[in-house]
Amino acid sequence: MHQPDHIPTTSHIRPHFGNDYHRTAHPRVLEELVATTKETFSGYGLDHRCEQTADLIRHLCHAPQAGVHFMTGGTQVNTTAIAATLRPWQAVISADSGHINVHETGSVEHAGHKILTLAHTLGKITATQISDLVTDYRTSGVSEHASEPKMVYLSQPTEYDTLYSLAELKEIREVCNTFDLFLLIDGARLGYALGSPANDISLAELAQLADMFTIGGTKCGAAFDEAIVFPKPGTDTYFRNNMKQNSGLLAKGWLLGAQFQALMSDNLYVEINAHANKQAQRIAQAFHDAGISLLFPSPTNQQFALLTEQQEQQLSAEFICQFFGTHGNFRVTRFCTSWATEDADIEKLIAAIKRLAPAN
Amino acid sequence: MHQPDHIPTTSHIRPHFGNDYHRTAHPRVLEELVATTKETFSGYGLDHRCEQTADLIRHLCHAPQAGVHFMTGGTQVNTTAIAATLRPWQAVISADSGHINVHETGSVEHAGHKILTLAHTLGKITATQISDLVTDYRTSGVSEHASEPKMVYLSQPTEYDTLYSLAELKEIREVCNTFDLFLLIDGARLGYALGSPANDISLAELAQLADMFTIGGTKCGAAFDEAIVFPKPGTDTYFRNNMKQNSGLLAKGWLLGAQFQALMSDNLYVEINAHANKQAQRIAQAFHDAGISLLFPSPTNQQFALLTEQQEQQLSAEFICQFFGTHGNFRVTRFCTSWATEDADIEKLIAAIKRLAPAN
Amino acid sequence: MHQPDHIPTTSHIRPHFGNDYHRTAHPRVLEELVATTKETFSGYGLDHRCEQTADLIRHLCHAPQAGVHFMTGGTQVNTTAIAATLRPWQAVISADSGHINVHETGSVEHAGHKILTLAHTLGKITATQISDLVTDYRTSGVSEHASEPKMVYLSQPTEYDTLYSLAELKEIREVCNTFDLFLLIDGARLGYALGSPANDISLAELAQLADMFTIGGTKCGAAFDEAIVFPKPGTDTYFRNNMKQNSGLLAKGWLLGAQFQALMSDNLYVEINAHANKQAQRIAQAFHDAGISLLFPSPTNQQFALLTEQQEQQLSAEFICQFFGTHGNFRVTRFCTSWATEDADIEKLIAAIKRLAPAN
Amino acid sequence: MHQPDHIPTTSHIRPHFGNDYHRTAHPRVLEELVATTKETFSGYGLDHRCEQTADLIRHLCHAPQAGVHFMTGGTQVNTTAIAATLRPWQAVISADSGHINVHETGSVEHAGHKILTLAHTLGKITATQISDLVTDYRTSGVSEHASEPKMVYLSQPTEYDTLYSLAELKEIREVCNTFDLFLLIDGARLGYALGSPANDISLAELAQLADMFTIGGTKCGAAFDEAIVFPKPGTDTYFRNNMKQNSGLLAKGWLLGAQFQALMSDNLYVEINAHANKQAQRIAQAFHDAGISLLFPSPTNQQFALLTEQQEQQLSAEFICQFFGTHGNFRVTRFCTSWATEDADIEKLIAAIKRLAPAN
Repeated sequence: MHQPDHIPTTSHIRPHFGNDYHRTAHPRVLEELVATTKETFSGYGLDHRCEQTADLIRHLCHAPQAGVHFMTGGTQVNTTAIAATLRPWQAVISADSGHINVHETGSVEHAGHKILTLAHTLGKITATQISDLVTDYRTSGVSEHASEPKMVYLSQPTEYDTLYSLAELKEIREVCNTFDLFLLIDGARLGYALGSPANDISLAELAQLADMFTIGGTKCGAAFDEAIVFPKPGTDTYFRNNMKQNSGLLAKGWLLGAQFQALMSDNLYVEINAHANKQAQRIAQAFHDAGISLLFPSPTNQQFALLTEQQEQQLSAEFICQFFGTHGNFRVTRFCTSWATEDADIEKLIAAIKRLAPAN
Repeated sequence: MHQPDHIPTTSHIRPHFGNDYHRTAHPRVLEELVATTKETFSGYGLDHRCEQTADLIRHLCHAPQAGVHFMTGGTQVNTTAIAATLRPWQAVISADSGHINVHETGSVEHAGHKILTLAHTLGKITATQISDLVTDYRTSGVSEHASEPKMVYLSQPTEYDTLYSLAELKEIREVCNTFDLFLLIDGARLGYALGSPANDISLAELAQLADMFTIGGTKCGAAFDEAIVFPKPGTDTYFRNNMKQNSGLLAKGWLLGAQFQALMSDNLYVEINAHANKQAQRIAQAFHDAGISLLFPSPTNQQFALLTEQQEQQLSAEFICQFFGTHGNFRVTRFCTSWATEDADIEKLIAAIKRLAPAN
Repeated sequence: MHQPDHIPTTSHIRPHFGNDYHRTAHPRVLEELVATTKETFSGYGLDHRCEQTADLIRHLCHAPQAGVHFMTGGTQVNTTAIAATLRPWQAVISADSGHINVHETGSVEHAGHKILTLAHTLGKITATQISDLVTDYRTSGVSEHASEPKMVYLSQPTEYDTLYSLAELKEIREVCNTFDLFLLIDGARLGYALGSPANDISLAELAQLADMFTIGGTKCGAAFDEAIVFPKPGTDTYFRNNMKQNSGLLAKGWLLGAQFQALMSDNLYVEINAHANKQAQRIAQAFHDAGISLLFPSPTNQQFALLTEQQEQQLSAEFICQFFGTHGNFRVTRFCTSWATEDADIEKLIAAIKRLAPAN
Repeated sequence: MHQPDHIPTTSHIRPHFGNDYHRTAHPRVLEELVATTKETFSGYGLDHRCEQTADLIRHLCHAPQAGVHFMTGGTQVNTTAIAATLRPWQAVISADSGHINVHETGSVEHAGHKILTLAHTLGKITATQISDLVTDYRTSGVSEHASEPKMVYLSQPTEYDTLYSLAELKEIREVCNTFDLFLLIDGARLGYALGSPANDISLAELAQLADMFTIGGTKCGAAFDEAIVFPKPGTDTYFRNNMKQNSGLLAKGWLLGAQFQALMSDNLYVEINAHANKQAQRIAQAFHDAGISLLFPSPTNQQFALLTEQQEQQLSAEFICQFFGTHGNFRVTRFCTSWATEDADIEKLIAAIKRLAPAN
């Protein structure tokens, strides 16, 4: 069990449920980073650490010839993957709630590509929506007057903390096969999916279904680290050129290799994020017990509670949490856990939820 | 009255109601083009013809210091205007049905900018929608993580042949003032607005309300010609640099100046497009009389009839018209007029509509 | 012989030797443009005129399956060809004097691509220079840290009015074969090459050696027209998508088809530009006879004379010519001819050159 | 004195003189990184560490209102600075040897901007060269047909390890003032300049002369860290938007703040790089004593020796060094030091140089 009690505590401040990236890194990741100080390395990701870690990932993905690369951030890895894959007139299909569409300051467009949006349902899009969009493009006669849909972008878990099921993903893959589309799966928070009982997709299945997918470290235990996997041999031939052009070739690449070396060993990546999920379910249960609704059921590490203004003030006074907008008369407030969320803080939060004034 | 009887006829083929750009140019435009063959000119739009025509447009716009430039196509003038105005992280707001969003093959994105779409109502968006979008951007805390809305793009008439009223446009201008947004009005088919009794916005009012707007020639009587007007002095200082960079500085710019010189003289631009509108209203009336619905009421030169398959076949056999997709059990079929639409052809079409088999 | 005496004269002004694009179009081109007014057409280049003209060009190029497209300007056709062909990390090799490098306001870079420059010799680069550059890239170890040279751009004639010989072009093609580079030949002024006795490369040979090349109309008799030819079948599959994205798909494409239909019929393109060349050689001879040097020998329609300030003033008073910078104590002054250059004007110029004050 | 003896040794391998980025980080930097594990932080650079470090840098630069931002790599900070500053038609002037021109895979062009190159002299360009280039642009009449030079890019030290003097930099600043150009100084290896007796430019003077300059950490003691300073208040208003768009807004920004907090405290940045320089001078002296020439005199941490093939083999067998190409009959071999270069290794190298076979 990987949730050690020697995580440095930060007890002088309010317990932090604001997001899952407010701590530097899991102790095991840090240990590995510190260990690199005793070695010398080749630069730009061409070192033994990166190679060993890539092998670990290939092994976990059952994709022995996969291309595996490491970058520092999610926007970077998404934009680089899209820029490396699409031709100028081609577009990427995304849920309108997709991270590339709403939280990357137009990086994809800055690289020259249009995002064709589909209306999401709790963050998800369906094979039928994709099929309809491409069919419409191909049959409407717009031909060269519109951007060609050529890639599908999905997040797992989604921006609404929902999970695609294996069946759904297979349907989407079939549509991609039918229409010759690339499938990019954004796993910036993949650890929370892999660590959720609600999830039925393994890394090996992701590798079978996606043309490229990312494994997020930064929000799942690492300090700064996103891996991208190209399961099919030969599909990443020029990816390093694109990494360099998109400022994503870290000089000291071993820092990235080392972090994922820790996370991918001994099931750490799954276990620490499963821990976060469990802590989040305890929060969900506490809200449920107090008669407070959640915006939607979330099987992962984020819970969005519908609070009255008074309730929000009560909880904000004791805990760091994040206001996400209003919903009817309620204030949507996010409570987020991570590998670092300790039992004591969860218990304090549960007690505070019990003490909340009723909605009216 | 400018609809001369000496328009070269094309009687050997089916009457053409397929679009408004299937003929070369109005005879007066052609005359002016031919007249240029007797002169010599400075290159790249720095000639006396362009300057005279710019003055004509400034006069009609009551904007004596406006910047006026001429380009060959609508995608070009839209993309260049947006690229010249926005900074990299800034986006343009458009109806989801906007031409820049659906029929320009991602040119705006190719130039690096995101289009933020609003759900249209018959091609139009409202001041409130714009205000809500910008307010949401400014208050949601996404700040630098999302593209900054900085420009509004409208079409007049819209892609659904509807017209913004002066009141609506003033409201939108106020929102632009409130939030410091640029307003770009795409007048690719502006002649049909100006020539419609349903229109209450003059060129001078457009010039007062827009930061930049285009006057379309190609679909309104010219062979290839789009003007762009920057009513406020000094707002087009580097526009020629952007024109060149976007391949929009025609070597023989006088060809553009000359065409608009014809169109902007003696009210030709308004009259020939008013003629087209009137012919279209006769078609609308004929469908109405035959009990055939139109997809929506159109005050301009395009009418979208809801035909049965049999009806569509009957009309297609005799006339060139354009299938636009299905609507329930009906086939949406466009009948489009232009300066070149002759009475005889309209009468033939009306007679044919009368002869149509009933819907069931 | 195609230099008709019914070219509209422009006798009220100084004879114009300033450039080759100050007149609208050759009368035969105009005739064909006017003829289009009697027809109706499909839009966006999908019409019978464009198809017939493409066939004409395929025939002249001995390339029956070539892709042929028409656009309005040289910057547009160059940029679109490069954007359509290269992947993001790839660069185009050009003479530092190349038009794409110095006179297109960074359009190629705006489309995302680096230009790798080679020092020109009178506008030309050599197979050895290209080979050395690529070899250096491949052996220096920069690998993904530098842009990959993937295309060669040449102009024929060059920006210094020189011509590549067939032998030189074959050498360059071999280097392209060796290193798997695309070869783009910019023929914006190709008519002057084809119409020069110094030229030994036919259209069919261009089509054999280049992956894509342009045939310039605008400066060679047309009003606005550039053709691009992809000799190898299937190499232009998505070019129309790129044309649209780069604002290069003219709504009334037949205007382009018609102009080249005139130029490519009855050898007009070659003959009228041969006429211009001959007139230019008469000017060159007159300078020679007067003991005035030319900056370099030019086999085409432009002559750069080294004039004293007094000489330049004398000629500028009577003729339109263009100052190009200083060379030692001399003022480099361009005298340019075209299809429209008449004998009477040449004779006036020759007489004026004879009357010039000696250099000192 | 900051060169502690507790630097983890890597004695099991050949002493490493191959580059200055093969070790993770200086122990003091690492210490600060590890210290962050006990705290919680706001994300995306909006934390107390970043703010404290920015203040440190403002203090050292005598620029109390400067904008200071942190990013992970040199290509990223250069490209973002250029993209944030220039308008689409504007270009950056650089030595042809400049890092942005030769080792960033066309990132600047990918962001849409042309690099106008000047021939370098040992990596440097002069005020006169810049002035001539801009004057030529402004007087040649190319106007909107060429990219507008609007920024000067310099490296300090240069790619040839030379240093601009204060006098030279002031001259360049004056040219920038005259022509209204931005001045960007790339200090990716600035520590080696600041730590060199040959340097006469302080951080405060850089801040007075440059519009923006970078302070490199990655190659100067940090693990991954580049700071960019905008000395003039208000000149970085939207820089964070550009950072995000260019994938340069690190989620856990405090990792960057913490590293520079270590480097900028107690003169560490200067002292450890001065140490590297001194070690390099000992190597230079050893080559000199052995009668072996250097490619050029270098006042910083890199020395390029002209070795015979036999000599190179002898040294490569014992030490990691880097072959840089041939020079006449010699093999140019780089010996590079860093904060981590220990006396024992230097002494081994000096001894080996003494033992080298003579060139004969």
